Amino acid sequence: MRAFQPTDATRIAVILLSGGLDSATCLAIAREEGFECYALSFEYGQRHGIELDRAKRIAQALGAIEHKIAAIDLRLFGGSALTDDIDVPKNRSAESGDIPVTYVPARNTIFLSFALAYAEVLGSSDIFIGVNAVDYSGYPDCRPEYIESFARMANLATKAAVEGTPLRIHSPLIELTKAQIVARGLELGVDFALTSSCYCPSPNGRPCLECDSCRIRLNAFEELGLHDPLLDRFFETPS
Amino acid sequence: MRAFQPTDATRIAVILLSGGLDSATCLAIAREEGFECYALSFEYGQRHGIELDRAKRIAQALGAIEHKIAAIDLRLFGGSALTDDIDVPKNRSAESGDIPVTYVPARNTIFLSFALAYAEVLGSSDIFIGVNAVDYSGYPDCRPEYIESFARMANLATKAAVEGTPLRIHSPLIELTKAQIVARGLELGVDFALTSSCYCPSPNGRPCLECDSCRIRLNAFEELGLHDPLLDRFFETPS
Repeated sequence: MRAFQPTDATRIAVILLSGGLDSATCLAIAREEGFECYALSFEYGQRHGIELDRAKRIAQALGAIEHKIAAIDLRLFGGSALTDDIDVPKNRSAESGDIPVTYVPARNTIFLSFALAYAEVLGSSDIFIGVNAVDYSGYPDCRPEYIESFARMANLATKAAVEGTPLRIHSPLIELTKAQIVARGLELGVDFALTSSCYCPSPNGRPCLECDSCRIRLNAFEELGLHDPLLDRFFETPS
Repeated sequence: MRAFQPTDATRIAVILLSGGLDSATCLAIAREEGFECYALSFEYGQRHGIELDRAKRIAQALGAIEHKIAAIDLRLFGGSALTDDIDVPKNRSAESGDIPVTYVPARNTIFLSFALAYAEVLGSSDIFIGVNAVDYSGYPDCRPEYIESFARMANLATKAAVEGTPLRIHSPLIELTKAQIVARGLELGVDFALTSSCYCPSPNGRPCLECDSCRIRLNAFEELGLHDPLLDRFFETPS
């Protein structure tokens, strides 16, 4: 946890917001820590636009001061099932240890770089990212050592850092299980019905319930003995 | 200098290409080192599009296999004379030590992040960037320690790095003066008439000759006792 400076009356943070469960919880945590939150999402050629719609609603519901959407075309390079015509795997073994085809090359590095630019322009030295090393499905850019390394690089990269205000990358979910993230989000009043986690939702946002991301989410709510409110929007509630 | 692997028959590199003098020389160096070159430029809301036109011509002239232009809107955040309606300073003292308003927040970090994605998709572990610490006009993201730190981060960020092929960021110009860069470029056959260095060229590409970038370029050719071929396109040759 960072040491707050008592003279730092208005603390501003940039929050990477995907429209998913993790980043919504991350935004709620930043707000709870007293930050004025500036949310940042990306239109990056993902096959489903539903998550940007969700990100907008989450930013509004959780009181973000501003929500910017940066258009970047990662399809230019290709290489991922989330941006290309590669099939998203269903019912994959979570223990395989392989990096899945849903991995988008250098995605978090690109996202954090834009957050760095946004933070510098805002005069902020705090960036929040909802990465998670426990349920990260083998993505290298979700590990603590990666986040720490990005922060070290960022502190050499910007005018603000050179002039003496160190930049902090907050990843408050990094050591939590998905169930712990859900519990923390509920505690902070996150409406998970607004979030979308599925890698391949239908055009109206209905989750497939079979991809890695859906399965991890389902398991998390089950583990807590809770019902996922998103499911009420698309499926009949079990009696 | 990297140690070449003799078994590595086709070596592929991603070259960040701006359309300026430095990156053109950098591309020529990569080619001379035996790399197949994949050039990457950015349409990033810069006020002058002339440099993209030059980048295309340089990529072609220097035999790049492919030239991609990634559209990213850095104007979204603002904060620089190169993307906003801030005046580019003329005849600024080069010794002031301040970071100039032409600095674009986190620009090289964003550019290198995209290069990282491109490299990973190509199966390349070599990125070339023409940054220069000698005449860098106070930009923090042109220093050797920044480049080294980016490489360390990148080696934790990608599937390729995790699977064991370390990524190298080559910055062959970083310790050279502008005059040395010009000399090296000429040696490798770079046609500097194709390059554009001015921060605020006229719509047809005529350099202002007064901004930092023009002055550093003018001085470099002068120091070598050479004439800049770009000037022949726009000004009468001194008799």
